Amino acid sequence: MHPTEPVTSQLRDAEASSRRVVIVGGVAGGASCAARLRRLDESKEILVMDRGPYVSFANCGLPYYVGNVITDEASLLVASAQMFRDRFNIGVHTETEVLSIDRAAHVVQVRDLRSGVVREERYDTLVLAPGAAPIRPSLPGVDSPGVFAVRSIPDTRLIRAWIDQRGVKRAVVVGGGFIGLEMVENLRHRGVEVTVLEKLTQLMPPLDAEMAVWVADHLREKGVTLYLGDGLAGIESHDGGALVVVAESGARLETDLVILAIGVRPETALAREAKLTIGPRGGIVVDERMRTGDPDIYAVGDAVEVHDVLTGQEIVLPLAGPANRQGRIAAEAIAGRTTAFRGVQATAVVGVVGMTVASTGASEKGLVRAGVKDFAKIYLHPGHHAGYYPGARAIHLKLLFSVPDGRVLGAQAVGFEGVEKRIDVVATAIQFGATVDDLANAELCYAPQYGAAKDPVNIAGMIAQNVLSGDMALAPWDEVENTDALLVDVREPEEYATGHLPRAINLPLSKMRQRYGELSVEREVWLCCGVGQRAYYATRFLMQKGYRARNLSGGYTTYLSLKSAGLI
Amino acid sequence: MHPTEPVTSQLRDAEASSRRVVIVGGVAGGASCAARLRRLDESKEILVMDRGPYVSFANCGLPYYVGNVITDEASLLVASAQMFRDRFNIGVHTETEVLSIDRAAHVVQVRDLRSGVVREERYDTLVLAPGAAPIRPSLPGVDSPGVFAVRSIPDTRLIRAWIDQRGVKRAVVVGGGFIGLEMVENLRHRGVEVTVLEKLTQLMPPLDAEMAVWVADHLREKGVTLYLGDGLAGIESHDGGALVVVAESGARLETDLVILAIGVRPETALAREAKLTIGPRGGIVVDERMRTGDPDIYAVGDAVEVHDVLTGQEIVLPLAGPANRQGRIAAEAIAGRTTAFRGVQATAVVGVVGMTVASTGASEKGLVRAGVKDFAKIYLHPGHHAGYYPGARAIHLKLLFSVPDGRVLGAQAVGFEGVEKRIDVVATAIQFGATVDDLANAELCYAPQYGAAKDPVNIAGMIAQNVLSGDMALAPWDEVENTDALLVDVREPEEYATGHLPRAINLPLSKMRQRYGELSVEREVWLCCGVGQRAYYATRFLMQKGYRARNLSGGYTTYLSLKSAGLI
Repeated sequence: MHPTEPVTSQLRDAEASSRRVVIVGGVAGGASCAARLRRLDESKEILVMDRGPYVSFANCGLPYYVGNVITDEASLLVASAQMFRDRFNIGVHTETEVLSIDRAAHVVQVRDLRSGVVREERYDTLVLAPGAAPIRPSLPGVDSPGVFAVRSIPDTRLIRAWIDQRGVKRAVVVGGGFIGLEMVENLRHRGVEVTVLEKLTQLMPPLDAEMAVWVADHLREKGVTLYLGDGLAGIESHDGGALVVVAESGARLETDLVILAIGVRPETALAREAKLTIGPRGGIVVDERMRTGDPDIYAVGDAVEVHDVLTGQEIVLPLAGPANRQGRIAAEAIAGRTTAFRGVQATAVVGVVGMTVASTGASEKGLVRAGVKDFAKIYLHPGHHAGYYPGARAIHLKLLFSVPDGRVLGAQAVGFEGVEKRIDVVATAIQFGATVDDLANAELCYAPQYGAAKDPVNIAGMIAQNVLSGDMALAPWDEVENTDALLVDVREPEEYATGHLPRAINLPLSKMRQRYGELSVEREVWLCCGVGQRAYYATRFLMQKGYRARNLSGGYTTYLSLKSAGLI
Repeated sequence: MHPTEPVTSQLRDAEASSRRVVIVGGVAGGASCAARLRRLDESKEILVMDRGPYVSFANCGLPYYVGNVITDEASLLVASAQMFRDRFNIGVHTETEVLSIDRAAHVVQVRDLRSGVVREERYDTLVLAPGAAPIRPSLPGVDSPGVFAVRSIPDTRLIRAWIDQRGVKRAVVVGGGFIGLEMVENLRHRGVEVTVLEKLTQLMPPLDAEMAVWVADHLREKGVTLYLGDGLAGIESHDGGALVVVAESGARLETDLVILAIGVRPETALAREAKLTIGPRGGIVVDERMRTGDPDIYAVGDAVEVHDVLTGQEIVLPLAGPANRQGRIAAEAIAGRTTAFRGVQATAVVGVVGMTVASTGASEKGLVRAGVKDFAKIYLHPGHHAGYYPGARAIHLKLLFSVPDGRVLGAQAVGFEGVEKRIDVVATAIQFGATVDDLANAELCYAPQYGAAKDPVNIAGMIAQNVLSGDMALAPWDEVENTDALLVDVREPEEYATGHLPRAINLPLSKMRQRYGELSVEREVWLCCGVGQRAYYATRFLMQKGYRARNLSGGYTTYLSLKSAGLI
């Protein structure tokens, strides 16, 4: 048979053909869609096609398979093609690439990648779940042996083999986002020295820069070398397999392995060629039921544009949770139900060398980008549980909220234990359009080893309430080094001596009631302490004594992060 | 000076007297009220009185001080009297008992417990924050040496000394609630063999019995001896300090130490004598601003009745989080603001020998007690994170929701990691009157070591959606042993062989599509698997094939817990 001659699959012949659903892509969104649709409708013929050798594998687990944290490749397979067939009567065609869509004819042209044979498959309903592909920049040497991206099980198998066979000692990870940092963690598990090259001046682009500083500091402390604000210029491949990553700055990083984790791009070639609408952010445009402009074609997962409920903008957001829910919603629509996708709020977490980094909702830069102006931000650094119980570690927390209505817009947290718990709570609150009052009033679990009578989330809400009520005016951090206000550090002298704001005088809170007369009532006073609490007490006192007092939110701890991020 | 002769304090003389706030009780609610009030109003004179030697100590930390997890007594002191004076200009009178309130004269009579001197203190506003006292039943021997309750730092000092000096090897904890279980954990830290005597047939009374079973099993596995359904009859004290706890069953438990953790009772003597209204649950009645019937008297914390937002009933709920918020709200009312207390939802957590037990909202028995009928319950046992990442451990989760509107009524969870995180998320959802749809749609943190693309909270919501939509009918567990329905276990034969429901036949999900014809369409089919997921798939399949199929929620895992709890 000639490879390009159309054929029909056995499944098509075997079943009535008027209710045939073809799903392109069988990982998160596609697999969810297929399984949910079968549970809702036994009468449909369901066919999943995937270019790769597996469907429904745990792509979020791939970095950990490289790191040998997950040792058994089979455990990455959430469901096998066999299970899809036996349990759900879902046909699975792996190593099958969909080449084109003939919308008028309701047919896709597909190629069996093993045989090279091209055939047609008829559909009544088509679901596109092609995902997003790692960006491979067109730069010299990016296709050299030893340069990898991390998308599929075969990718990770190649990386594992490269590490084992070459005795890799050094790796360069290009890109400091989610996948990049997970690869850092896992390469370290393998005993590899890691250098990160990131074009932005910060790690973790979804975070604001001063929050990402905590991550960078932690990684440097753990021996990871960071090149921030420096992009990839090219990769040289030398005899014997040695690689040199050349940075835009001219820096030359000798290495044994390069991981490209620059980001991903929605796989939209198929949709584009079929003249489906592609949005300004490069994703397939769908409605709230995940339907494209063609009533018989749905699209889900990393390839689609989704509505950001915080900024009101359409974005692409390659995350497994939303992808799974979208698959489910497409299935419900195909089964004649009317479930709507509520949009996304970009809740995400990453663990890196013991540290947890999580965020939900809008970042400050995201708000600025979206043109939102009426918002405020606070910083706090509470312990992850009650301070009197041993082992409390700081959570660095930033809360963004709308002014004056107090609606919670976003939160970012960096620390060790209990970080993602607080972000999950704020994420849930955001889902309901919560205000900072709601955070203050949240009734959360408290026992000494888990939290505090005033949980970090409560405290964040209370601080924000104080800002909105005018009980605590905030001093603008970006003016702290050239303000005319008097800077007063209210910590004890021994704390002040270990480091303080430039030009700040020391007047401890414990002496404030005796000594406040030393401060001129004419001059604005900006108050600072370690994390903002004592400065708040001083702010309240001085305000009531007739001073124009402001608090530097988050105290000296925040100052150090802003300074380190170059924001002051 | 004669001990009963009224005197006035120095603070009264030192300040203008028309704005004097006296706070009775200086721990959670009282201390919060004092500090917040000072921040809002510098002009008030604030005076805190406490019967004990300390204010603002971490009473939730006391068991851990007994256990030497917290080694330094000073770390239990959140704020000292000195700090209250220096930072906040709050007068603190420790070891000062308030004897009575003269509401007409706006005066309290107080006794200095060191000198015995009785004096009067004038107030403009009075805040009662007396807390709740451990119940000491009137039984023989409960006042014997070696029998302790856990309320104050001096209590714990005595227990520590008793353990150290007597070389305590065995302890009996009377009461298996929060404090009792925390004492179990901490006595074990000290190498003490522990027996728990609990009058109810379950541990952890806030939980439903079948959920508490997981805790009991865990404790037994860890070597703790449990006497459930057996109350305290008395305690014998023998020569040499040996104690025998006599149970109502006649059991005699020889021991070196007895902890009474039967529960607490609001301290309302002062309020009763002052003719303030005491509610049916034995707490002081307050409005949403924490004001009693007397406009100049507020009450906060463990001594007051609060509104349960789930059942609509007034309850007493001795928890630190609500107490702190109530103190804050009373302060705001006194300062002329209009913040309202939103009521409670009984979010709580306890850690016991590595296990975490948490709940929020109503329990099933609480709903029944409140006369609520239109609700449903589901069970699930998801891993605390993605199964493909090593180390996932089950969270046993029960969700209660309103029928047909799907409002979330309560959740209970027992497991190891990630338990209280899920309860905090559900607690936050309940705060907003969430439905199970909202749980299904929650966008939570996911990376393999933290959660799953479908978080346990999402899954709980999805299962409940399936129940409400009629996609999955639930079989009533309490009828499983005498139903006429056919019981079908859909696990694989080797799983079935390790234990299954009485009378259940085995028809694996993997063979269901070939073999379902073996089942009579006339007879209702109740489906069971390990945790409920495969049975759900089978339920959907059989329903679509015309069977009356129902799922036994939570599967065989739930069966074992219900059986163990005596509910089947």
